[in-house]
Amino acid sequence: MLKLGDTYQTEFSISQEEVTKFAEVCGDKNPVHLDADYAAQTPFKVPIVHGMFSASIISKVMGMEFPGEGTIYLGQSLDFKRPVYVDKTYEVKCEIIEITEGKSIAKISTKIHETERGKIVVDGVATVKNVEKLP
Amino acid sequence: MLKLGDTYQTEFSISQEEVTKFAEVCGDKNPVHLDADYAAQTPFKVPIVHGMFSASIISKVMGMEFPGEGTIYLGQSLDFKRPVYVDKTYEVKCEIIEITEGKSIAKISTKIHETERGKIVVDGVATVKNVEKLP
Repeated sequence: MLKLGDTYQTEFSISQEEVTKFAEVCGDKNPVHLDADYAAQTPFKVPIVHGMFSASIISKVMGMEFPGEGTIYLGQSLDFKRPVYVDKTYEVKCEIIEITEGKSIAKISTKIHETERGKIVVDGVATVKNVEKLP
Repeated sequence: MLKLGDTYQTEFSISQEEVTKFAEVCGDKNPVHLDADYAAQTPFKVPIVHGMFSASIISKVMGMEFPGEGTIYLGQSLDFKRPVYVDKTYEVKCEIIEITEGKSIAKISTKIHETERGKIVVDGVATVKNVEKLP
């Protein structure tokens, strides 16, 4: 059983090829994600990862790792604080900040940091239910 | 220029093949999305779409349609109220509910409804910036 204060963290990076696939699957072909010439004209200068792709990494962690199998995703807040760049390394850091006992529901803080300088790029809180792993 | 109260809506459906591709791209291979036998043992009975895939449809609308090109995604809240099923038809309904004038920032309510019965499946609010389309 997981308990209040339990933490989990994992590292990831996303390639330009993965960003292109994500754009094809969800239909979001905004050129800021795909076209280096276009991105050069924006404040980002180089192509950035879709915010919802980085959010999908959080979703993967919830469903497969922490709490893991059996998780039902009830909600997620997302604050896209800084761009996520292709091929850079990031860490997802999770901490159980609230448990509704008897309901198997938890709030988990979900923060994505740049590995190199530690700056938060995505901040948020997940709400999940898992009858096997939460009291 | 967009203004307070402006609305946009569009219809979509997601195939099992698209769900499988989404799982491959983001790595979330939770069997509730991919394996009909596993899903049959859950409260959902049949495979469901990743919540973050339906959220990615909202993201696509923000970036490509409403407000559209030039949108910078600052945040999104997501309340996954009911499962989203493969091959069913849904509508994304958006409405500008707040504008921070002079900053080109808006809050947009983003609701996904079942087309058939109108029930809300995903509720939330997007925060976006667009210097060309918001005052």
